Amino acid sequence: MKDIKQYIEENKQRFLDELFELIRIPSISSEEKHKPDMIKAAEYWKKLLLEAGVDKAEIMTTTGNPVVYGEKIISPSLPPVLVYGHYDVMPVDPLDLWKSNPFEPVIRDEKIYARGADDDKGQSFIHAKAFEYMIRTNNLPCNVKFMFEGEEEIGSPALVKWSADQKELLKADIILVSDTGMIAQDIPSITCGLRGLEYLEVEVTGPCRDLHSGLFGGAVANPINILAKMIASMQDENGHITIKGFYDDVEELSAFEREELNKAPFSLSEYKKALDIDEVCGEAGYTTTERTGIRPTFDVCGIWGGYTGEGAKTVIPSKAYAKISMRLVPHQQHEKIAELFATHFESIAPPCVKVKVTHLHGGEAYVSPTSSPAYQAAAQALETTFGKRPVPFRSGGSIPIIATFEKVLGIKSILMGFGLESDAIHSPNENFPLYNLFKGIETIPYFYRNFAKLLKD
Amino acid sequence: MKDIKQYIEENKQRFLDELFELIRIPSISSEEKHKPDMIKAAEYWKKLLLEAGVDKAEIMTTTGNPVVYGEKIISPSLPPVLVYGHYDVMPVDPLDLWKSNPFEPVIRDEKIYARGADDDKGQSFIHAKAFEYMIRTNNLPCNVKFMFEGEEEIGSPALVKWSADQKELLKADIILVSDTGMIAQDIPSITCGLRGLEYLEVEVTGPCRDLHSGLFGGAVANPINILAKMIASMQDENGHITIKGFYDDVEELSAFEREELNKAPFSLSEYKKALDIDEVCGEAGYTTTERTGIRPTFDVCGIWGGYTGEGAKTVIPSKAYAKISMRLVPHQQHEKIAELFATHFESIAPPCVKVKVTHLHGGEAYVSPTSSPAYQAAAQALETTFGKRPVPFRSGGSIPIIATFEKVLGIKSILMGFGLESDAIHSPNENFPLYNLFKGIETIPYFYRNFAKLLKD
Repeated sequence: MKDIKQYIEENKQRFLDELFELIRIPSISSEEKHKPDMIKAAEYWKKLLLEAGVDKAEIMTTTGNPVVYGEKIISPSLPPVLVYGHYDVMPVDPLDLWKSNPFEPVIRDEKIYARGADDDKGQSFIHAKAFEYMIRTNNLPCNVKFMFEGEEEIGSPALVKWSADQKELLKADIILVSDTGMIAQDIPSITCGLRGLEYLEVEVTGPCRDLHSGLFGGAVANPINILAKMIASMQDENGHITIKGFYDDVEELSAFEREELNKAPFSLSEYKKALDIDEVCGEAGYTTTERTGIRPTFDVCGIWGGYTGEGAKTVIPSKAYAKISMRLVPHQQHEKIAELFATHFESIAPPCVKVKVTHLHGGEAYVSPTSSPAYQAAAQALETTFGKRPVPFRSGGSIPIIATFEKVLGIKSILMGFGLESDAIHSPNENFPLYNLFKGIETIPYFYRNFAKLLKD
Repeated sequence: MKDIKQYIEENKQRFLDELFELIRIPSISSEEKHKPDMIKAAEYWKKLLLEAGVDKAEIMTTTGNPVVYGEKIISPSLPPVLVYGHYDVMPVDPLDLWKSNPFEPVIRDEKIYARGADDDKGQSFIHAKAFEYMIRTNNLPCNVKFMFEGEEEIGSPALVKWSADQKELLKADIILVSDTGMIAQDIPSITCGLRGLEYLEVEVTGPCRDLHSGLFGGAVANPINILAKMIASMQDENGHITIKGFYDDVEELSAFEREELNKAPFSLSEYKKALDIDEVCGEAGYTTTERTGIRPTFDVCGIWGGYTGEGAKTVIPSKAYAKISMRLVPHQQHEKIAELFATHFESIAPPCVKVKVTHLHGGEAYVSPTSSPAYQAAAQALETTFGKRPVPFRSGGSIPIIATFEKVLGIKSILMGFGLESDAIHSPNENFPLYNLFKGIETIPYFYRNFAKLLKD
């Protein structure tokens, strides 16, 4: 496959043109007004797959945004690889922090800047082009199925039922996913663990209308003050979460396992410098690698209430809100955590307010073994193209659907991510280095070759 | 003055037309874009005063929004009354809670609904029309000066210097103000105390950019979690404010004074019903009347940070903000409280975040004696028109400029407010009952007559 580099070199501009067209579609799944863009993005993916060489591609309806499915069956006897990705993206606010339009990709310093440049339009595009190369050069060693969904960023609510319904169609030996990161551009790595997630919205109501903070201040519950107190009480001074039962299912790793985990390359000083912080902070007794890799979290992702405009308004608002994300670790069930949270939140609410808890989305954590053929195939592929043996590591992120696939379809996933921490996914100025994009396209065909060979042996 | 009722009856529609024209000008002082509306409102006030019969009226520049000044000097030997009011209003958000356009006044259930209907366009309009009546019927017993400012809702930042500069022009025996409320429509009352105010904005910065809550969650300071903890820590479980030195200058009232204070008519069950709350809440050991009348407060008037849109976004924001109002009581100096707050806030910030405190506005508390001629004149006037002796009471609100007038001009104020708690000032659906508007116009001429007589005696 020595001609893969040349193939990329010759087609670079076309690849970028095609990817940019995909990125220009503002397919934000959490915002209702972008519904038509979800369809546009799905249609564009269908076109991409057909042009790349699948036998058939279709837009399949679900109870939510559609799934784009495509396949190339070269022989019923060969092992099928199922590629998963998503065409939906995160919202873009705060918009004023973007240096350029999030939906008009530009290249600066050899990086593509745009919402979805990495997560997951850029990364899933890698698979379309690696596949195109294998088809056009007769290098495809096995059957391939593609499944691109449009609701990953909101927790894939429709995909559970859809994939259960399509169990036969989706049959595969492995699910191949590029929706994670690598430790650094010169440290190839394979994600062997993902955290789960429970994401909730809370509402605290004080008086039935906004009140003048002078006439009523001091005598009536201020829902912001109360919400702050409730949030504050949910973590103790050691950063432990105080929700009753929260840690019941958390598995403590052995000293040896923790030691192994902390061997992954990590520089605390560079980490702090990159984020411009004087100190890291988190649960007492754990390293930064452990805090994101193996420990659950309690983060307020958004908070709002009262007057947030310019200058001063002396008001006690009627309501205050927060969006809360709890990252979970293996064995924690997000439905159970949602229940524990709601029970706890209601129990700590003082009688002068009313509270409401709404589950928004969730999913379980995932761990994958480094001993599997898929891991070996991926490790060899990365070693071939990066010239270094990759490092296995646990990411703090969540792709809830990965655990669901294992439960519903009975298929493990291999997470070959090409993103970097500096890609700023979910943030303003999301970007994806051209190096990572093209290195990804170069690496994937080796995975197919290695994986098909290992399964045949 | 038995013809005052008839005069109001005959001119009702014209009064409303004129007031509505004033209300339609969206003179929100805290929003930069409304600068031209401030000028419009000032010009309209000049016209109103001239039409009502002042000798001269002018728009006087200040370092901020202009002051409208007008006067009627019938004889240099007579006592002058200085009428103070403001033509600026509060912002209108949340706009979706208004039942009608805040700047298109409508009458529903015998109440005018609009921003400024009470505070303070409606209430200050009372003085223009009471004055017009006295001029046209030859009932004006003393000299009158009018001063309407355009920055009351943002703490009158320009008025201190301006009034010091205009000390000679503003010379008067009393400042007459209608910018407060009465206990109920059938319980006339005079405000004898106002709280002071210190209003600040705080900013908490964690990482230098928004981060993915999965990849970084648990390892990096989340500025919302930290802000919530900091806010929560600033009041203890008894509702006491924990800022070091905060209560140093607070005067504890004697048991007798507190007993007197609690004699003002108040129904806790009606209060709770009107606000749709199960319980009131506030500083332990004080009644609701005391909590708003004589105790300082700590209220978050606004909070924001992270993702506040529809659905879920898994983000650790770079920054979180809050607007904090502290109502103050006599002897507490707002500049000192601002310093104590900033020192305390910085001292409790953990090393993983940076914090910034910005003073937005402030003012001192005010108390006025019930033994003064102005109080007697006001009490007799209210008794004449309402048929009941008015109740003296302390309001929880603040009109910082009132304390400043005493300091700078050496003149006391008499607070004859005609507003009701249900007027929802500063809130959506602000309103002012026609009854209160016209009763105010009916009452004010009696105040002038009584006051001039008392000073002559």
